[in-house]
Amino acid sequence: MGCFNSVVINAPADKVWTTIRDFHDLSWAPNVVEDVEKVGDIPGTQIGAKRVLNGAFQETLLGLDDNQRTLRYSIDDGPDAVSKDNVKGYVGRVQVLPVTDTDTTYISWETSWESSGGGVQEFCDPIYQALLADLKKTFS
Amino acid sequence: MGCFNSVVINAPADKVWTTIRDFHDLSWAPNVVEDVEKVGDIPGTQIGAKRVLNGAFQETLLGLDDNQRTLRYSIDDGPDAVSKDNVKGYVGRVQVLPVTDTDTTYISWETSWESSGGGVQEFCDPIYQALLADLKKTFS
Amino acid sequence: MGCFNSVVINAPADKVWTTIRDFHDLSWAPNVVEDVEKVGDIPGTQIGAKRVLNGAFQETLLGLDDNQRTLRYSIDDGPDAVSKDNVKGYVGRVQVLPVTDTDTTYISWETSWESSGGGVQEFCDPIYQALLADLKKTFS
Amino acid sequence: MGCFNSVVINAPADKVWTTIRDFHDLSWAPNVVEDVEKVGDIPGTQIGAKRVLNGAFQETLLGLDDNQRTLRYSIDDGPDAVSKDNVKGYVGRVQVLPVTDTDTTYISWETSWESSGGGVQEFCDPIYQALLADLKKTFS
Repeated sequence: MGCFNSVVINAPADKVWTTIRDFHDLSWAPNVVEDVEKVGDIPGTQIGAKRVLNGAFQETLLGLDDNQRTLRYSIDDGPDAVSKDNVKGYVGRVQVLPVTDTDTTYISWETSWESSGGGVQEFCDPIYQALLADLKKTFS
Repeated sequence: MGCFNSVVINAPADKVWTTIRDFHDLSWAPNVVEDVEKVGDIPGTQIGAKRVLNGAFQETLLGLDDNQRTLRYSIDDGPDAVSKDNVKGYVGRVQVLPVTDTDTTYISWETSWESSGGGVQEFCDPIYQALLADLKKTFS
Repeated sequence: MGCFNSVVINAPADKVWTTIRDFHDLSWAPNVVEDVEKVGDIPGTQIGAKRVLNGAFQETLLGLDDNQRTLRYSIDDGPDAVSKDNVKGYVGRVQVLPVTDTDTTYISWETSWESSGGGVQEFCDPIYQALLADLKKTFS
Repeated sequence: MGCFNSVVINAPADKVWTTIRDFHDLSWAPNVVEDVEKVGDIPGTQIGAKRVLNGAFQETLLGLDDNQRTLRYSIDDGPDAVSKDNVKGYVGRVQVLPVTDTDTTYISWETSWESSGGGVQEFCDPIYQALLADLKKTFS
């Protein structure tokens, strides 16, 4: 049960990772994320950082790893199918890997959840596809 | 300590995985592997299968996973820098991941070893680059 | 969504792994598995091996890794909550890790599924607990 | 090439993880770590946090994951075998896993490095064994 989306980005892995690793900076997704609200004083590279995206998605940074170039976060509450009444235990994982022969980047955005009242994948897949398309455009 | 090489292949992940998963079939690398000798009667999808490549590289299949699309193997003895006198604990891991937006494939070939007398990465990197280039050509 | 059960076994990791790695040998679980039927001629260490447990659980070996001491399998059909009508994409993963200070073993049995009509965890957790208790007894 | 040490701790996984996750708090290892110097203002749960242990080991937090209960760090410089002149690319990984049947914890401390002038494992293994013994004592 989950979403899996991935693209190839026309930039080196370190550059892509540096661009996306700060949980409070989504300037690389201007067509999807219009508003990022930082909750409290915790910086976006500290575990436990919280953000509200587009006034609706409440998320917490669970893990960040510069060595593996991965991050993990939860959606704690949100609109429609990702409301806390419809879905429990929603966790996302983003992984950045180098494509060595062209010095470009493979990135996957994978999410899973423990239980739901349905409709989560249908609601979420287009969002991740749009996020990744925006990231691709940033480096095109 | 290790090698890391990766490419994007112009074919779906299932097709790429099906092509490479049999430890005794390297027909996808005609410019690199001229000869594959199966050792004994163990099929190439059974853990413990052994092969000799180009009459020189003695390798054993340690792991194979159709769910994760990964395989793991050891080089037990070989020429030059990968002879058993020069390197100990040499293990390779191949991972196949889908690139969903274009229905293509990311594949990484990663190896590590416990100790060596030196020169292993310099010797091995070009081999994996040639193998992956051949795989790329197979699906071009 | 899934089951997670784990125990510590009073034997070295290599011995525990050797005991459980053959998909067709469940002699280490005499109180849980009364009957193992091998389907076809594929050996229990070849990927794709099939078994029927207690005349009811139809399972396929998806992955086996002697280096990581892990195996992965699917339940393709079974009784009650794990019937193919109630659950889709059921995959189990068994991992064996050494406890170095006492030369004993940690083993986890983790399963997940893509979707279900409910009741899967309640049905499955007691089975894995009984399997692991049997393995523990084997080495006590 | 690396160290692998692991023990079972007589406390639930959440409690063990909470105890060790802050990179600046080693109060659980009083017999091994006499002095922890925080470098700069970065908190111990923020990626990039730096510490100096016992006035000698200079380390950086590379990754922290509350969901997987893992942390990753580098030794950037240190005494003897872990001086930056003797070892390159030294990375450690700590993983906490629940032992469900007894509600206790399995913890592994694994390290690897890219290259060295030798003697690293012999120097480091006793340190990790002492750290884990101290953690065990904390919860005994």
